[in-house]
Amino acid sequence: MTDVSPNTNRKLLLDRRPVGFAKESDWKLVSEPVPVPDEGRFVVRVRQISLDPAMRGWMNSGRSYIPPVAIGEVMRAFALGEVVDSKATDFPVGTLVTGAFGVQEYAVSSGDGVSVINQNLDVPASAYLGVLGITGATAYFGLTDVGEFQPGQTVFVSGAAGAVGSTVGQIVKILGGKVIGTAGGRAKCDFLVNELGFDGAIDYKSENVGEELRRLAPGGVNVFFDNVGGEILDAGLSNLAMRARVVVCGAISQYNSTEVTAGPTNYRALLVKRARMEGMVVFDYEDRMAEAVTPLAQWMSEGKLNNIEDIVTGSILEFPQTLMRLFEGQNVGKQILDLGA
Amino acid sequence: MTDVSPNTNRKLLLDRRPVGFAKESDWKLVSEPVPVPDEGRFVVRVRQISLDPAMRGWMNSGRSYIPPVAIGEVMRAFALGEVVDSKATDFPVGTLVTGAFGVQEYAVSSGDGVSVINQNLDVPASAYLGVLGITGATAYFGLTDVGEFQPGQTVFVSGAAGAVGSTVGQIVKILGGKVIGTAGGRAKCDFLVNELGFDGAIDYKSENVGEELRRLAPGGVNVFFDNVGGEILDAGLSNLAMRARVVVCGAISQYNSTEVTAGPTNYRALLVKRARMEGMVVFDYEDRMAEAVTPLAQWMSEGKLNNIEDIVTGSILEFPQTLMRLFEGQNVGKQILDLGA
Repeated sequence: MTDVSPNTNRKLLLDRRPVGFAKESDWKLVSEPVPVPDEGRFVVRVRQISLDPAMRGWMNSGRSYIPPVAIGEVMRAFALGEVVDSKATDFPVGTLVTGAFGVQEYAVSSGDGVSVINQNLDVPASAYLGVLGITGATAYFGLTDVGEFQPGQTVFVSGAAGAVGSTVGQIVKILGGKVIGTAGGRAKCDFLVNELGFDGAIDYKSENVGEELRRLAPGGVNVFFDNVGGEILDAGLSNLAMRARVVVCGAISQYNSTEVTAGPTNYRALLVKRARMEGMVVFDYEDRMAEAVTPLAQWMSEGKLNNIEDIVTGSILEFPQTLMRLFEGQNVGKQILDLGA
Repeated sequence: MTDVSPNTNRKLLLDRRPVGFAKESDWKLVSEPVPVPDEGRFVVRVRQISLDPAMRGWMNSGRSYIPPVAIGEVMRAFALGEVVDSKATDFPVGTLVTGAFGVQEYAVSSGDGVSVINQNLDVPASAYLGVLGITGATAYFGLTDVGEFQPGQTVFVSGAAGAVGSTVGQIVKILGGKVIGTAGGRAKCDFLVNELGFDGAIDYKSENVGEELRRLAPGGVNVFFDNVGGEILDAGLSNLAMRARVVVCGAISQYNSTEVTAGPTNYRALLVKRARMEGMVVFDYEDRMAEAVTPLAQWMSEGKLNNIEDIVTGSILEFPQTLMRLFEGQNVGKQILDLGA
């Protein structure tokens, strides 16, 4: 354990590339004095760290949609924090901000890629890591832009109890569609239907997803928002409506695989149904974030959209176990590590 | 052997659903008198039958993009023929027509789905089964509409020595792009490069498709027109440029499989590259055929576009062996059975 003083920044560096599930020893804890910002820069005290399935991919070597985290580099993470020291006029002390501050207690920033939180809105700041942040934008643009959802259509979302999935489902209901989701376990499924208004929920651990989906959406699904991959992707492909759109947002079932991952056997459904399968990366929408955040904030303030979050309180030492909650399917909604700062 | 008289129509009926490759005994030869047309109908003497990989799929039970051929029904086939008896004013005796006349010597038609061949153009009638018919339209709309090809872009086409593939490659060159194809064997590859102007050709039987494609298209491919599926689909997916379009036109490598077919392991490249994979069925373009045929006929008359065809002459008894040529990769260009009628 490192000595913790108010002037110490503790951070987790990537120490080795994981094989299969990431384990604690894949990171290294380092302490350093809290840096003093240069002109034009500021220091953020990190309050809450966002945990995302994509983190596992960032730990692999080889460029994906963004470069991997380098060995010896601070583990990449989106986070919410407060400016505690500043030589940047746009970011005065006391400003609440979100950005890719990493798994550390203090981050120095030039403001690049940093969003200032509007503290006039009556929503908790953590929502900016959830439905008003990248999570919400992923759901919104994936559904409406890549998925070309139209009111009256039927949507199937996998990983529906997760941060993105639970937001997708709620947006479908707000915009006037039918939504069916998959989740692991009866409790999560009940939550989706009873609390979030899903039209149906399939427990992939105990039910045949393809058969249940056929029953719940006999006309097929117009948009399949896939966060999961694997067998559930195949089940969705076998239940497409004509000209359906399959949004490839993630593949959480595959991220920790040590074998060559299976491809979707039923991809030829794309031919039969003249359907489209398309990848979606939210970073491409950086310039259009307001398009999503404006309606999402509006719906949240009207009580139509819930920011579902799952908060673990602890130090950054808790990061590895908290990340595992995602891959073990323990979280409901956005997984956050709250540093209590 | 059935007695053949001028008034006899011989036809092949589907007799059983094949397992694996279709064999001669999956069809039954039947003879009947040539029918006399009712009012509004006409009789076509079939001259040339088009052989298409999709035929194998039509023989399976279960609806695909069109219903299967029923047991006891004439085997479905597109064909070119001449009106020899008519009670339909729009189709006088002597008219050359194409349509889904089936594997038989004479067909009765109401004109539904039948195209009259413009005999004023200086092109062989068989071209209407090839580049000026469904083959050409598949290539044209798949490339320009689903594939959203733009001049200057790089296209990868699998099954490039086939009817559709050889047309796709030629259209890319006419419209000003770069095209790389796969084919089985050095001779076919040389033909693609030397005769059709392909920028590169990969012999999938002796070369590593993924590696060769990376070498020939180091910036990745903007449009991947896939007729083949299987390992070549994966190789193409691993070489996509950003925002690439994968046109799923066929999967000839999989049609005769008796096992569950493999899915594209690399489908997650769609996410990394924000790419799209979309199914294409030419029948959806029925109302837009002129959009394709007009430029295709123009290019053909200018000598820019070649109608590559592979003609077997024989009776309809030759149909089963001629179909096998497609799956054994023996054909170059459009496979046709010419009845010598």
